Amino acid sequence: MRHAIWKPRRPVYLCDGTTVVGHEEAVGPLGACFDRYDPKDDTFGQSTWEAAESEMVRQAAKLLLERNGLGAEDVEALLAGDLLNQCTASGYGLLPFDIPYLGLYGACSTAAEGLILAALLADFTGGRTVSAASSHFCSAERQFRFPMEYGGQRTPTSQWTVTGAAAFLVSAQREDGTRRGRAVRIAELLPGITSDRGVTDANNMGAAMAPAALDTVLRYFSLSGRTPESFDMILTGDLGSEGSSLLCGMARAEGLDISRVHRDCGLMIYDNERSDKHAGGSGCGCSAVVTAGHILPALRAGRLTDVLLVGTGALLSPMVVQQGRSIPGVAHLVRITAGEEED
Amino acid sequence: MRHAIWKPRRPVYLCDGTTVVGHEEAVGPLGACFDRYDPKDDTFGQSTWEAAESEMVRQAAKLLLERNGLGAEDVEALLAGDLLNQCTASGYGLLPFDIPYLGLYGACSTAAEGLILAALLADFTGGRTVSAASSHFCSAERQFRFPMEYGGQRTPTSQWTVTGAAAFLVSAQREDGTRRGRAVRIAELLPGITSDRGVTDANNMGAAMAPAALDTVLRYFSLSGRTPESFDMILTGDLGSEGSSLLCGMARAEGLDISRVHRDCGLMIYDNERSDKHAGGSGCGCSAVVTAGHILPALRAGRLTDVLLVGTGALLSPMVVQQGRSIPGVAHLVRITAGEEED
Repeated sequence: MRHAIWKPRRPVYLCDGTTVVGHEEAVGPLGACFDRYDPKDDTFGQSTWEAAESEMVRQAAKLLLERNGLGAEDVEALLAGDLLNQCTASGYGLLPFDIPYLGLYGACSTAAEGLILAALLADFTGGRTVSAASSHFCSAERQFRFPMEYGGQRTPTSQWTVTGAAAFLVSAQREDGTRRGRAVRIAELLPGITSDRGVTDANNMGAAMAPAALDTVLRYFSLSGRTPESFDMILTGDLGSEGSSLLCGMARAEGLDISRVHRDCGLMIYDNERSDKHAGGSGCGCSAVVTAGHILPALRAGRLTDVLLVGTGALLSPMVVQQGRSIPGVAHLVRITAGEEED
Repeated sequence: MRHAIWKPRRPVYLCDGTTVVGHEEAVGPLGACFDRYDPKDDTFGQSTWEAAESEMVRQAAKLLLERNGLGAEDVEALLAGDLLNQCTASGYGLLPFDIPYLGLYGACSTAAEGLILAALLADFTGGRTVSAASSHFCSAERQFRFPMEYGGQRTPTSQWTVTGAAAFLVSAQREDGTRRGRAVRIAELLPGITSDRGVTDANNMGAAMAPAALDTVLRYFSLSGRTPESFDMILTGDLGSEGSSLLCGMARAEGLDISRVHRDCGLMIYDNERSDKHAGGSGCGCSAVVTAGHILPALRAGRLTDVLLVGTGALLSPMVVQQGRSIPGVAHLVRITAGEEED
């Protein structure tokens, strides 16, 4: 058994997901899916961009607990991460909750990493866990690229960091609260192996992450014996147009055609005709809010039944890239199914 | 059941721990416990401090696999984290291993957080997991405080970031390889709740972390019904002299006297008479190398039998502190026992 697919020993449900986004996401094609946005200026009433991101995380977690009627004592653990140095959006944002906290760092794959560990914890405790992930265009831009005031021109392969936070309720019991529809389960988990193919262009994250996504997808289909056609969707986190095209092409070269069912959160969240985001959206918040706001309701409503979420992340820091190192990627897979049928 | 202590459903063993440290740690009171150090200049043959830290992580993990006769296919997952922005010491250091990777961020509590999740994963998979944590004085100093060349005077409450990396082998089977002695088990887990009591002095991490350690210790004794006397040691990660004194004093005020059995890794790793480190050692590497190099062998040899490791972390970033925010702490508890007896 070599790095097997992990399957929870009891049913583990993805019961709910809450989303808080920025203006650009709220006016995008999925805008109507999201729970909240700041109608004013994406500051969420805070005086710094870092505090704004923390506030988004706090609001997403608070809304999740409130609309599921949960107190702090009803949740076994919070798992969360973000892109900021020392993951302060998560640390400060979740400080108000009197719940054990385990910090994660998976770059843009954090939402999927959080779902993996939240599912294992729900399986272990028999209780509820909450996982969260976030990013904010302004806090990311000034940390990873340029000061907000700089206004530099972006390269065609560059992506736009999503302003968004999502919180997921993962439980060993089906608890759908007031939301109707089918039960949604986290059925299988395959954590990613880091991969570095020598990409050094920090403005081409799609290329840095695509090999990791390929590795995870190939391992999943090899281990499971399934074919891409048995899924409604293979949903990558934030490969964007560049990385998506690379992934589908490399998979085809390996004899696996995923192009019919492949979608990418980064290509779903913005309308490039209306608001040019170059290669698409990125950031921890990208796959988090698309999964929580768009995919989960579609699974519940019967528009989707079996989805592979492949959360992609680029494990760089600006300093390490300036030191000339290439950029490793990682991709964590979570199979999310709807309905009562067994797999 | 309110945030219960987690107990693995099957025995989970802490089979081995490897350590790679810097010069100051190698000449300290525990120097003889550590597996490797760089006899030259703490660069480990690398051209940057960040690459040096990655190399320490790589060496610790490589040595762990080698001396336990394990290949990549024998380990279910790597869990690791560090203090660097975007956790690049772990990401790059563990890149050579063809093993699924889950990144963590728990600041200086990362070693304990990693042991918690590694134990849950070993429990879930029935296999082996490796957790790692690291810090390097030079990479931390220039990221969190001043350029290495600056030579600023340090305040009395300041701590010294340990140059050290440790990797732990956690398994559902007892696999002690060539090392003799008693079986060492991870018996209980209690993840920490973040706590912020308004400390804003980034040179007094002990004070920022002590309330979180207190919360975890009080919760553990309340939930377990045990008393401090039933343990050989309550080992905090890196409270240093300032934080240790605060913890013991606050615990006493709550009616719990832990001072007889309390030790702190940050106060064990350096000899302040010989080499003044002010309030003691700190960093992810501090509790990691002390636990792996000193505590684990003592448990195996019978010098210790029942230890509570309380990994402490301060969840700040320099930017957030400059923005005037106070510093939250977190403390994760791992009960480590030796012998064949059941708890």
